[in-house]
Amino acid sequence: MSFPETPSPAERYVIGVDFGTLSGRAVVVRVSDGEEVGSATLEYPHAVMDTTLAATGDRLPPEWALQVPADYVDVIKTAIPRVVQAAGIDPASVIGIGTDFTASTPMPVLADGTPLNEVAGFEHRPHAYIKLWKHHAAQGQADRINRIAAERGESWLPRYGGLISSEWEFAKALQLLEEDPEIYQRMDHWVEAADWIVWQLTGRYVRNACTAGYKGIWQDGEYPDRDFLTALNPDFAGFVDDKLAHEIGQLGDAAGTLSAEAAAWTGLPEGIAVAVGNVDAHVTAPAAKAVEPGQMLAIMGTSTCHVMNADVLAEVPGMCGVVDGGIVSGLYGYEAGQSGVGDIFAWYVKNQVPGEYHAAARERGLSIHQYLTELAQEQPVGGHGLVALDWHSGNRSVLVDHELSGVVLGATLTTRPEEIYRALLEATAFGTRTIVETFNASGVPVTEFIAAGGLIKNPFLMQTYSNVLRMPISTIASEQGPALGSAIHAAVAAGAYPDVRAAGEAMGRVNRNVYTPDEAAADAYDELYAEYTQLHDYFGRGANDVMKRLKARRRDALAGSDLENASHDDAEREARV
Amino acid sequence: MSFPETPSPAERYVIGVDFGTLSGRAVVVRVSDGEEVGSATLEYPHAVMDTTLAATGDRLPPEWALQVPADYVDVIKTAIPRVVQAAGIDPASVIGIGTDFTASTPMPVLADGTPLNEVAGFEHRPHAYIKLWKHHAAQGQADRINRIAAERGESWLPRYGGLISSEWEFAKALQLLEEDPEIYQRMDHWVEAADWIVWQLTGRYVRNACTAGYKGIWQDGEYPDRDFLTALNPDFAGFVDDKLAHEIGQLGDAAGTLSAEAAAWTGLPEGIAVAVGNVDAHVTAPAAKAVEPGQMLAIMGTSTCHVMNADVLAEVPGMCGVVDGGIVSGLYGYEAGQSGVGDIFAWYVKNQVPGEYHAAARERGLSIHQYLTELAQEQPVGGHGLVALDWHSGNRSVLVDHELSGVVLGATLTTRPEEIYRALLEATAFGTRTIVETFNASGVPVTEFIAAGGLIKNPFLMQTYSNVLRMPISTIASEQGPALGSAIHAAVAAGAYPDVRAAGEAMGRVNRNVYTPDEAAADAYDELYAEYTQLHDYFGRGANDVMKRLKARRRDALAGSDLENASHDDAEREARV
Repeated sequence: MSFPETPSPAERYVIGVDFGTLSGRAVVVRVSDGEEVGSATLEYPHAVMDTTLAATGDRLPPEWALQVPADYVDVIKTAIPRVVQAAGIDPASVIGIGTDFTASTPMPVLADGTPLNEVAGFEHRPHAYIKLWKHHAAQGQADRINRIAAERGESWLPRYGGLISSEWEFAKALQLLEEDPEIYQRMDHWVEAADWIVWQLTGRYVRNACTAGYKGIWQDGEYPDRDFLTALNPDFAGFVDDKLAHEIGQLGDAAGTLSAEAAAWTGLPEGIAVAVGNVDAHVTAPAAKAVEPGQMLAIMGTSTCHVMNADVLAEVPGMCGVVDGGIVSGLYGYEAGQSGVGDIFAWYVKNQVPGEYHAAARERGLSIHQYLTELAQEQPVGGHGLVALDWHSGNRSVLVDHELSGVVLGATLTTRPEEIYRALLEATAFGTRTIVETFNASGVPVTEFIAAGGLIKNPFLMQTYSNVLRMPISTIASEQGPALGSAIHAAVAAGAYPDVRAAGEAMGRVNRNVYTPDEAAADAYDELYAEYTQLHDYFGRGANDVMKRLKARRRDALAGSDLENASHDDAEREARV
Repeated sequence: MSFPETPSPAERYVIGVDFGTLSGRAVVVRVSDGEEVGSATLEYPHAVMDTTLAATGDRLPPEWALQVPADYVDVIKTAIPRVVQAAGIDPASVIGIGTDFTASTPMPVLADGTPLNEVAGFEHRPHAYIKLWKHHAAQGQADRINRIAAERGESWLPRYGGLISSEWEFAKALQLLEEDPEIYQRMDHWVEAADWIVWQLTGRYVRNACTAGYKGIWQDGEYPDRDFLTALNPDFAGFVDDKLAHEIGQLGDAAGTLSAEAAAWTGLPEGIAVAVGNVDAHVTAPAAKAVEPGQMLAIMGTSTCHVMNADVLAEVPGMCGVVDGGIVSGLYGYEAGQSGVGDIFAWYVKNQVPGEYHAAARERGLSIHQYLTELAQEQPVGGHGLVALDWHSGNRSVLVDHELSGVVLGATLTTRPEEIYRALLEATAFGTRTIVETFNASGVPVTEFIAAGGLIKNPFLMQTYSNVLRMPISTIASEQGPALGSAIHAAVAAGAYPDVRAAGEAMGRVNRNVYTPDEAAADAYDELYAEYTQLHDYFGRGANDVMKRLKARRRDALAGSDLENASHDDAEREARV
């Protein structure tokens, strides 16, 4: 891949800004080769509001999670000038800005983009605020969406593995309508934060193709129709036409240019390119050189998100979604995921590991994860006699069922904490293999496996994944994959590269085949994976719905007791999409 | 029940001695009413030899567990004089001694009762020593016994739920023959420690009906025949005739009288009655007033042993055994058990409970078990969303399968340590219910449930059992049930009561119906028990033999690595029969 017409970009830079759950991070990246020359982070002043509304101190209902839009602007105003200064570059050498965001994180705004929580008299209304991705209070609405869509045979439903999440735009908007109709009526647009921040930078509102597709049910240029919306709630009939539909921007395009106001905030030149918004997982693909068909990128953190391009449109059972141009223009972007990965390990070390282990880890200067890994890694495959199901946070793919739960099977009186820890690591690898095999069987084969995210720092875990998948594993060579990905999109938006694939080729950073499968271990894991699969299908495909019954009974039991708050914790800790 | 002919026994006493795994305990008991007026304990000097042979320092193979017979005599010589003195009674007022023992705990002796490890030149030979109940190195022999017995359709096999344990007399003797034939040839008798200690007290060798029946395959007055023994090993053909068969003594009968030598050891009058030996679990039945047909006694400790009398002979699937007169003369004594109960809770608090919990318990002056119970007990039934299988030490009844293993199902990221602890407590209650229901369905109904053992000190656990069983639970009102039971047998042997049932009525101590089921909780537990049963049958009855495959794979994996010692731990920690 080459682009001879492009002049040498040696002294030119782009800025990528990654808006995470608790903070925003800005990086300065050299356009020519993707070198990261500086980074700066700002924690959001209001963090996540999931117990009380900051403006009033009022208690929020269970399962709510809100944010304050001004916090995002603070990142622009603070982190960007700081990183430019720290990098020691001339602001005039910056040719573009790209951003990525958590999703779906929608908010109600006026026609000029003013968030409703900034409208006088609305600051005390919870529904006027941003609903963060992990706001899980719209499950009732999501259930209705899914039931009615299935009854009506909506053509878009299979594009989402058959289920629309309570985290997404429609469920959250329907909750808003039904719980605070005045706010709903007053809002002019229901906007993803990913697009709102670009609006703040450019003065233009453009919906990005990624969130519109994965979170906004935008398929083949259309949204769900008025009949469907009416069936959900007659007052929701105009939602798409009145509140949602808007110009779509393709990933890597410029949404506009930096406004005079935003130039003043940032100290950057007015008029430079600002890329169309994006989602943190998807934006990472070019940063890890994982945009070609068949290259699956796994962003492995508290949960794991899998994104992969393909030339063809296929229905992959249990995927989160397939969107034309959802990752890069011109290819079908697929998304799948595991609801709990690092979250399960974190739960385990907090709740199921004795004090001596933590003390020994401290003494050795190791994290508890490193210490447990060290204890567990020398054991031969199967030496612990255990198999686990990694469903402590439900199963996103391929079962798409958050009523499932965790299992550890095979414990004896000699089972040690590090053995169960290892079984849980392995279970997440088996979960990944299940997803990979499902893609392979659905006409969109996974030909390469590339990993990003915090968990790639654990070599034993990565080697286990390689052994279980029987595939080499490449790892991103950047600590800030999403921000680098945003910078790559900025470079494309600025015209430094012809498209995202070319820019990723030049600026992306990957270490190829860092881990390769050990054949003997892979053979042994084949047998354990067969056990996992048998349990996976038994508990996950209806032969024994004990997990659903136990969860239902738990809800009933707690509803009848003084312990309702326990169910609140569930939502707080559920892993994000 | 009355015995008008018996003269008032107001100032007469009996002594019961309970020989446990690590110590022997003697109690002085008033004949008239069972009042315990003193007790004394001696720890065995050699404890359990399971890593090295004390006489040589040589390392023992994995899964061995030996004892030294002289340690038992030390209990006689030390604890009996001490308790008589401590009780402040006149030794002349003692009319009998009774004893009980762990089982099966057999040893090779000469014709005069001399243990072979005391024969010059044999002290360095491990096979010359006592094989403690938890010596598990004869599994290969047990497997052969079971296979050949099943092939031949041996009539006695169903009396043991279809499986002879590696812990019992035949498997251990066959191991002795095959691994140290010289010791085997030299021994004149293969004697249970329960009978050997009585031999030391009286000078007479009498096999007690309880160990002969439950551990020695003595059924309807016969042992396995010579053809069967020859099929096991031609050199084993004469085992029964040459080494095992001997006079049988019924429980409660006198085996003989205290010899002059033993009178000198103990300071007790020569010629007083010495009861036929007994097993610690079974001897407890009259102490808890649990000898009538249908009264099930559960001795709940590291493991649980269930004993119950019935008028009829029935084949109860998965029982440990049924023996005519095995608990009291004239009734069929049934035994069943759960391999792991308190052991599972102990494993859990050692391996799966964070340091903060232990620290908080210490601060409150509670044991970790009390603290976890306190945290868990207020939650409504099913509030944790969990169900567990209590098979961490295998399943003794009703599946009789030590290749099964533990399961915890239903964990989420909000599951707390005390919730899993509670699920494990509940799982053992479900295991007990499974046994009770199996008896009920086999023509020997359980009409009353009485509990003894260390776990009766946990009121929440006992209330849970009552709720799960939907039965009132009575508890023994003695801290030393086995020793009290031995004292009751001494009183019968001395003629103070006409039989064990009458003596138990007068001297046994039980608090009736301490726990009664809460109907609402029982209803909720019915649902959880249904989940337990579905998993029990799925994993335990062949639908998915994943546990066996995992254990086999573990053995293979460890055999091929440097970690063979891990399998040694298994045996050490396996709960006793």
